[in-house]
Amino acid sequence: MIYIVFVEPESPGNIGFLARTMKNFGFTDLVLINPCDLEKEAYYQAMHAKDIIRNHRNYRSFEEFIQSEKIDFAVGTTRMAGGSYNVSRIAITPEQLSESLNINGNIAIIFGREGNGLSNDEVSLCDIIVTIPTDDSYPVMNISHAAAIILYELFKRKKNYPREDLEEASKSEKELLIKEMNKLIKYTGYPEHKMKTSSTVFRRIIGRAFIAGREAHTLIGTLRRINLKLKE
Amino acid sequence: MIYIVFVEPESPGNIGFLARTMKNFGFTDLVLINPCDLEKEAYYQAMHAKDIIRNHRNYRSFEEFIQSEKIDFAVGTTRMAGGSYNVSRIAITPEQLSESLNINGNIAIIFGREGNGLSNDEVSLCDIIVTIPTDDSYPVMNISHAAAIILYELFKRKKNYPREDLEEASKSEKELLIKEMNKLIKYTGYPEHKMKTSSTVFRRIIGRAFIAGREAHTLIGTLRRINLKLKE
Repeated sequence: MIYIVFVEPESPGNIGFLARTMKNFGFTDLVLINPCDLEKEAYYQAMHAKDIIRNHRNYRSFEEFIQSEKIDFAVGTTRMAGGSYNVSRIAITPEQLSESLNINGNIAIIFGREGNGLSNDEVSLCDIIVTIPTDDSYPVMNISHAAAIILYELFKRKKNYPREDLEEASKSEKELLIKEMNKLIKYTGYPEHKMKTSSTVFRRIIGRAFIAGREAHTLIGTLRRINLKLKE
Repeated sequence: MIYIVFVEPESPGNIGFLARTMKNFGFTDLVLINPCDLEKEAYYQAMHAKDIIRNHRNYRSFEEFIQSEKIDFAVGTTRMAGGSYNVSRIAITPEQLSESLNINGNIAIIFGREGNGLSNDEVSLCDIIVTIPTDDSYPVMNISHAAAIILYELFKRKKNYPREDLEEASKSEKELLIKEMNKLIKYTGYPEHKMKTSSTVFRRIIGRAFIAGREAHTLIGTLRRINLKLKE
């Protein structure tokens, strides 16, 4: 179970945006620690994720949450460490978190206040700290955008993508396409080495293009027809 | 140069959030196409990225922007294709975009309207389409959160840019290649709609493959020879 925890939110709009981005990436369990009034703005910005706000759990303090829900692994989030040499804040990236997070037991991913983030005491209760790499000129992200990035990284490895209807062409489909192209290239009358260059370029492009199965079929069919025409 | 383009924004708050997330990842050039009134809300949500809004460029239509700014590579963004068999919308992920984008010339990353996204006509003007993998239960993201994820993926690999060894083909080189392919496709004797599908698939693949100038030249030469052969 993965809890998404927002500590002392100050803006109902941000709660709504957080709920929406949670649902976008298949997370459902929202925890609010001593939040502001939700008002209608929270529900409005949640759009089709109003259920996540309705079902949220509420705690008075971060410590109370950690103890009540028996959290096995607490992931804190902070902005760029900003050159401070505070060892407790040495952070991993969202990508590293996603690669290494083993989703057994109860995990909490914790976002701090809009203004001041997590306190040092709260950070010290976390097992790990995640920081999003940002540009030095403006490292302070809105909390819901930071959450979108972290939840997206977790989601990327949770589910296969692309979906079946956009399935990438198999190796043999790509080989078939290259074979038809090679037949076509023969009709150029190029010397051997030039034909080989053309063939290599085509192969590389197919390799790079993330070509879908049905795209491969369309092109194989097309090249076949042209090859038949040339044979006549 | 990378332009971040927001087509017909309906909410000033989203413009502000977009500007902030741009600055978080080191992007500065915002283009608004026929936007709503900015009002103070846009500036308020931008926080320390108000300069990006102040310096934005404004166009009446997407077509006008593409022509005026001489865009070499247009990246459209859409939500999950939703099982539709519209070949022109086969999309790559933000990660794939970031891995392969070669930043030479003018690039536009284009976000559509909050309600309706990009129109089919606008999508057809794009060289490539990017879609963020999301949960099936709620695939519709807020535009500024979608932007945060795409810009974050680009930022992660920014230090590797540019790949000088592999200069990307210009728009006109790619058009020439597609023109030669279209001539070739005519020889299939396919009905009009099948020829159009073949042509669209080829165009998409060229768009996605980040084809180098010298690769384009090789293929143009090859297809020309084959077309000459077929003419005989």
